[in-house]
Amino acid sequence: MKYFWLAVLLISMPIQARQQQDKEQLRDIYHQALSNGQGYTWLNYLSNQIGARLPGSLQAEKAVNYTKSVLDSMGLDKVWLQPVTVQKWVRGLPEFAYLESSSGFTNNVPVRALVGSVATPLGGIKAKVVEVHGIEGLKTMGKDKIQGKIVFFNKPMDPTIIDTFEAYKEAVDQYYSGAVEAGKYGAVGVIVRSLNLRLDDYPHTAAMSYGDTPMEKRIPAAAISTNGAELLSASLKLNPEIQFSFRQNCKILLDVKSYNVIGEIKGNTYPDEIVMVGGQLDSWDLGDGSHFNGAGVVQSMEVLRLLKATGYRPKRTVRVVLFMNGQDGLGGTTAYAKNAVQKKENHILALENTAGGFSPRGFSLAANQANFNQVLGWKQLFLPYMIHLFEEGSNKLDINLLNNGDMVFASLKPDTHRIFDHHNSDNDTFEHINKRELELGAAAMASLVYLFDSYGLESPNN
Amino acid sequence: MKYFWLAVLLISMPIQARQQQDKEQLRDIYHQALSNGQGYTWLNYLSNQIGARLPGSLQAEKAVNYTKSVLDSMGLDKVWLQPVTVQKWVRGLPEFAYLESSSGFTNNVPVRALVGSVATPLGGIKAKVVEVHGIEGLKTMGKDKIQGKIVFFNKPMDPTIIDTFEAYKEAVDQYYSGAVEAGKYGAVGVIVRSLNLRLDDYPHTAAMSYGDTPMEKRIPAAAISTNGAELLSASLKLNPEIQFSFRQNCKILLDVKSYNVIGEIKGNTYPDEIVMVGGQLDSWDLGDGSHFNGAGVVQSMEVLRLLKATGYRPKRTVRVVLFMNGQDGLGGTTAYAKNAVQKKENHILALENTAGGFSPRGFSLAANQANFNQVLGWKQLFLPYMIHLFEEGSNKLDINLLNNGDMVFASLKPDTHRIFDHHNSDNDTFEHINKRELELGAAAMASLVYLFDSYGLESPNN
Repeated sequence: MKYFWLAVLLISMPIQARQQQDKEQLRDIYHQALSNGQGYTWLNYLSNQIGARLPGSLQAEKAVNYTKSVLDSMGLDKVWLQPVTVQKWVRGLPEFAYLESSSGFTNNVPVRALVGSVATPLGGIKAKVVEVHGIEGLKTMGKDKIQGKIVFFNKPMDPTIIDTFEAYKEAVDQYYSGAVEAGKYGAVGVIVRSLNLRLDDYPHTAAMSYGDTPMEKRIPAAAISTNGAELLSASLKLNPEIQFSFRQNCKILLDVKSYNVIGEIKGNTYPDEIVMVGGQLDSWDLGDGSHFNGAGVVQSMEVLRLLKATGYRPKRTVRVVLFMNGQDGLGGTTAYAKNAVQKKENHILALENTAGGFSPRGFSLAANQANFNQVLGWKQLFLPYMIHLFEEGSNKLDINLLNNGDMVFASLKPDTHRIFDHHNSDNDTFEHINKRELELGAAAMASLVYLFDSYGLESPNN
Repeated sequence: MKYFWLAVLLISMPIQARQQQDKEQLRDIYHQALSNGQGYTWLNYLSNQIGARLPGSLQAEKAVNYTKSVLDSMGLDKVWLQPVTVQKWVRGLPEFAYLESSSGFTNNVPVRALVGSVATPLGGIKAKVVEVHGIEGLKTMGKDKIQGKIVFFNKPMDPTIIDTFEAYKEAVDQYYSGAVEAGKYGAVGVIVRSLNLRLDDYPHTAAMSYGDTPMEKRIPAAAISTNGAELLSASLKLNPEIQFSFRQNCKILLDVKSYNVIGEIKGNTYPDEIVMVGGQLDSWDLGDGSHFNGAGVVQSMEVLRLLKATGYRPKRTVRVVLFMNGQDGLGGTTAYAKNAVQKKENHILALENTAGGFSPRGFSLAANQANFNQVLGWKQLFLPYMIHLFEEGSNKLDINLLNNGDMVFASLKPDTHRIFDHHNSDNDTFEHINKRELELGAAAMASLVYLFDSYGLESPNN
């Protein structure tokens, strides 16, 4: 009953007073984040004391325990683990690769197995190479020229596309479908140019799929660094007969049980409306997973800490979810969504940042027009914090089950120019995290969570 | 005469067609910058083959020759050197500093002389330390507590201010006036906490001034790294009697002659209207001057190359000026401005980027309302390139002499969050330059130059 009157009071507050209150709350959030932020310390632990955390690994288990202990220490109303079943893929022996220009003359080049790929024989495979420009190049080349060879997909990311994620999308099918498609032409293996705008020595991995290709027809696929790709391409121009060899030892094991880590502050007015913020707790096994997605994990935890530290009492239930997604990228989110549907939970916002801990530029939103317009109405509040971009986007969490009406899916949009220097590679390490940029991202996310908590949906769930 | 008809044609072009033309020109500029940018290669040479370039040094001379040779190779209409007289300050023997907790027990800490400071005696000075929070702390402490001691200015940059340059401005008087003010209270030396938002081991230098303090009353001043400042402060809390010692050997020599490097493309319609873009060619002697201001130098040269490479023929005269500014920060700009006034040159725009080669966010403009509004009218053209911010600002070039009416002074506004990790320190090196961010900055600058060239001033010079 007491909350009823509080609600009446808030609803009847003059608009100006509410705007002033919003302004002050954002100021307090940013002040707390920039003068006393905890995310950088947490990420230091996650990256340097735990490290990369493939699902099913000891590190993933440690990450579950560590983040739960952090949430436990924050004085939330509830912290729990949610069981998840995830695929387990292991890298095995380190990869190696070389090109052989004539018998015995070799150049080592850095490669990493694509995540989900099959192994080569233990001694590796060795074959001639056919270079193609993207998947579409296979057709041009034809079966005669591909049969028995290694296909080298060498379509680079287009540097003239401003949003580097768009450039990534244009070329990522080489990773995802390269092995399946090249296999149809009789290739014995696939080497893919790393999706990285720089020339350097880091192979960047990513998930790949064999679709329904039978086990005996699956060919191994690996990423090669951009410098390695340039070398291979230049060498092929000099002598198309050179051979390439790579060895990888990865495999898929039996599914394993793991956990999503969840914590929440119960809303004091509309506890059944859930404002959710989350990150992906597991990572690939290259580097230490600092940007992908350690940053998003600690920023999500920091959102709840910032609300508490500024003395804000949420009206709705504010929940942080750290997803154990696994190799297929969906284990944790699917488990979470199924559970939410079963319990008839009513989410109004799902916010994430899976694009690295870089300087935040804005938000991308999957929302109906009324809810999108409501966010646009908050834009003035964000401008002093250099948050300028509010664009329509997709539901990056891929948890459509949650969408029981008009809920909003939002992604923090960090500056994308440096992202692919690090993405899914050994170069994704803590030293490349800038403390201030990480904190500014958490503050922007906490501000959006505050506003959704404060105003709810403009066009509410049914 | 033929240009007259071209001008008539352009003026009579329907607005929509011009907007389309602008859109295409910006697209071409960005495409050229991101797929064939030259600035990174030039900066690699300037930073790694020449290095830091204090005015009067061999490196500064080499930088003049190198940048002139680049401009010479670009097919401009005119390239020339403009004589400049600049102050010459040398660092001399490397600095050292330590704190002594009891006789013989010492901790080394990194310090660097402030630029313009006097030397200590060759063996250094050693004294007790009094810590104050900014210049205003001197008064609180009073002469009794300061006399005969080293004043330790330990006011940090405020991390809660979003634009880090604003935070810098709030604390930089400790550098600039610290020695003069502490000298009035009988201090024997000054140590200033580096203006850096991180805790690290790099002292950050800056210019300082003794005003009209007589030579014999000038006391030496040095910057200490933020880690060093934390250590010193913590040690003083444990034992206020500890001694601090530092040695520096810097001095001011006789003025030297050097050059501004200038190149231009003559306008084909209004050759007397000058659209100028420039950077500071000299640097401090810490690191290699990559961000400060090597980035601005190569971006300015790249602006002219981009216009030429996209086949654009300027209507007005587009000029690049690389200023040899010197220790007082004004030698080159003053010489340039005096010359411009003498020749009654009519500048309509002076554009610079002295804020590092980071991801560009927008522009800061010193302009009258009509000209500012004209730029706002171009905002839509910039949004696809993630250029969102158009703010009123100051004339950072400090060349007021040029302002013969309503000309516009513009600064590229890069992301400021990482700037003070590098500014004026040994950490300002080429490895911290991101090629793509550098290129995006040059493209944004070239786009603004193109628009001013194309439209001229909305409210023209008298």
